[in-house]
Amino acid sequence: MTTRRQFIEKASLSTMAVTLPFASTFSSSVRKQEDKVLRVAIMGLGSYGTRVAEAMKDCKRAKLVGVISGTPSKIEAWKEKYGIPAKNCYNYENYHQIKDNPDIDAVYVITPNSLHKPHSIGVARAGKHVICEKPMALNAEEGREMIQACQEAGVHLLVGYRMHFETKTLEVIRRQRAGEFGKTLFFQGLSGFMIGDPKQWRLNRALAGGGAMMDIGIYSINGARYMLGEEPIWVTAQEVKTDPVKFKQGVDETITFQMGFPSGAVASCLSTYSMNNLDKFFLNGTKGFAEMQPSTGYGPIQARTNQGPIEAEHITHQTTQMDEMAAIILDGKSPVVPVDGEEGLRDLVIVDAIYEAVRTGARISLI
Amino acid sequence: MTTRRQFIEKASLSTMAVTLPFASTFSSSVRKQEDKVLRVAIMGLGSYGTRVAEAMKDCKRAKLVGVISGTPSKIEAWKEKYGIPAKNCYNYENYHQIKDNPDIDAVYVITPNSLHKPHSIGVARAGKHVICEKPMALNAEEGREMIQACQEAGVHLLVGYRMHFETKTLEVIRRQRAGEFGKTLFFQGLSGFMIGDPKQWRLNRALAGGGAMMDIGIYSINGARYMLGEEPIWVTAQEVKTDPVKFKQGVDETITFQMGFPSGAVASCLSTYSMNNLDKFFLNGTKGFAEMQPSTGYGPIQARTNQGPIEAEHITHQTTQMDEMAAIILDGKSPVVPVDGEEGLRDLVIVDAIYEAVRTGARISLI
Repeated sequence: MTTRRQFIEKASLSTMAVTLPFASTFSSSVRKQEDKVLRVAIMGLGSYGTRVAEAMKDCKRAKLVGVISGTPSKIEAWKEKYGIPAKNCYNYENYHQIKDNPDIDAVYVITPNSLHKPHSIGVARAGKHVICEKPMALNAEEGREMIQACQEAGVHLLVGYRMHFETKTLEVIRRQRAGEFGKTLFFQGLSGFMIGDPKQWRLNRALAGGGAMMDIGIYSINGARYMLGEEPIWVTAQEVKTDPVKFKQGVDETITFQMGFPSGAVASCLSTYSMNNLDKFFLNGTKGFAEMQPSTGYGPIQARTNQGPIEAEHITHQTTQMDEMAAIILDGKSPVVPVDGEEGLRDLVIVDAIYEAVRTGARISLI
Repeated sequence: MTTRRQFIEKASLSTMAVTLPFASTFSSSVRKQEDKVLRVAIMGLGSYGTRVAEAMKDCKRAKLVGVISGTPSKIEAWKEKYGIPAKNCYNYENYHQIKDNPDIDAVYVITPNSLHKPHSIGVARAGKHVICEKPMALNAEEGREMIQACQEAGVHLLVGYRMHFETKTLEVIRRQRAGEFGKTLFFQGLSGFMIGDPKQWRLNRALAGGGAMMDIGIYSINGARYMLGEEPIWVTAQEVKTDPVKFKQGVDETITFQMGFPSGAVASCLSTYSMNNLDKFFLNGTKGFAEMQPSTGYGPIQARTNQGPIEAEHITHQTTQMDEMAAIILDGKSPVVPVDGEEGLRDLVIVDAIYEAVRTGARISLI
């Protein structure tokens, strides 16, 4: 007796025999699941793009194979440094032609925030999977458009939430879900750093869509959700600004915000571009606590609970992220904490509510 | 030439010569300044009153000499345990007669919150200095009445802010004032513990005037003020309640609150009766930080800054407090952080604003 599955497997094997000699190493549809590699182009060759490229050198399931950049000299440098073939190099005028390139599976969009939406939609319409750096977009409306475009194109939309794959973070989450901290009633996230160059795009409202909240405060939003394992039902927020020259209208310097959850848990968070010594998560429950500092930096992350420190080897976050994202896209793997467009959208809904709370002074309901 | 001051000093000396043989050891106005001892009666012989009594055994400038209690058996026990003479023992019906007792200088009011006002005013009208446990009263209006009554009676009104004399706290304050942390932009206070017996007076609205905020949240209010060295100009607050049976109407279980300061600093605080693992202060500036945990418990307090731990011998807080309060009353000493009625009132104004913010959802201006 032959099951349908066995039949498909046999069919694939026979296809393999035929296509193997003609297929490139990467485009073959016949590689065994665990041998498949996600072939990624990076769009935006700035400092974070470089960090991802370096991290991908150690990936087992993902490989940097292409670039999209508006700067020809950067493309030349990357071709040489990462062995990228000329045929996989694009600029912002011609990158839609990537749809005709069978050797690229996904594009990691690492451009300024305001370009995430148009670039992600452009990539989706070119038939490639989208990995979009956080924040996914400037607001929830943009996020919804991106989700729709990716659905219509039949491609994955993943958001660059590297912490969702970080070992110590996942261990704290595991213990929270297992009830080891009892009923978790309080999350505190202190996210921020003292930002440098006042001319960078992160301080440009048009490109960043805001200030510290879009860049670093979102870690506390996201962290509150994955640490508590609940979705907030209300938000309040307060803004203070000590340097209106550096932090212009619409560019938030410091915002404190609070979120209430269905269980009665509350999150109290700080987002700032004016202080260092932060990057701290604190999760408190009726039976115990977890404390992480650094909690979302590039690591190594430090975590301890009421039972002592959590020990785990540090692996470059972006290496794990890209390998895990390859497994999501290639194998249909489900991550413990989602990294899909819906997950990104949840944070954007909260960002919108925080800005509205700052503007109106009101408690914003999320239900 | 003789100044007015010299004249008064000389006059005092001549008075001394006359009165010395007739004065009791304690009531003599002629003891040298450093020999003077503040003779204190404790009103309210509960667990905190006992803690103060024990701590006073080691005092150099203050001495427990009397008690006021509604429980005769407690009075008998204290007479024996602390060597208190029968003539210095009062109950709530006759304690006003303390005005005729020259051997008591001050009364430490350690009764439930709602009794602080009537008891403090009663003590003041009996001509004795008032030391009132925190919170000074149920609200600012009561606090103002107490200040006025003490002014009219010509007696001191001090509030039991033991942290204002704690060594590590004072060292962090010294460094903040010296600019060692740069511009301090953020204070976080996490004040709370999991409260036990649901029948205790602290969970009775009529006696406590509220819940966790009145008892433990006030440490974060007060701490924000002495750590930042500024007075807040606005307050926002959010309440959550997970156990409405234990925490009845008007008894707050958990409140998050925020305060804005003229410098642009912001305080983000938690007050709760539902969690342990708190009692944490964090002061962050542009050049450094201080972290304290425990920050306001009975100690030893632990403090560290960006430069490392602050080391200092632990001295029972109430011992130092009572010696220092004796110096304030007897010598006119000025403490680094005030403990007078005006200081207590500032916290009550903020407590009122927090409750109003919870009730209305609005940002409450304090100016």
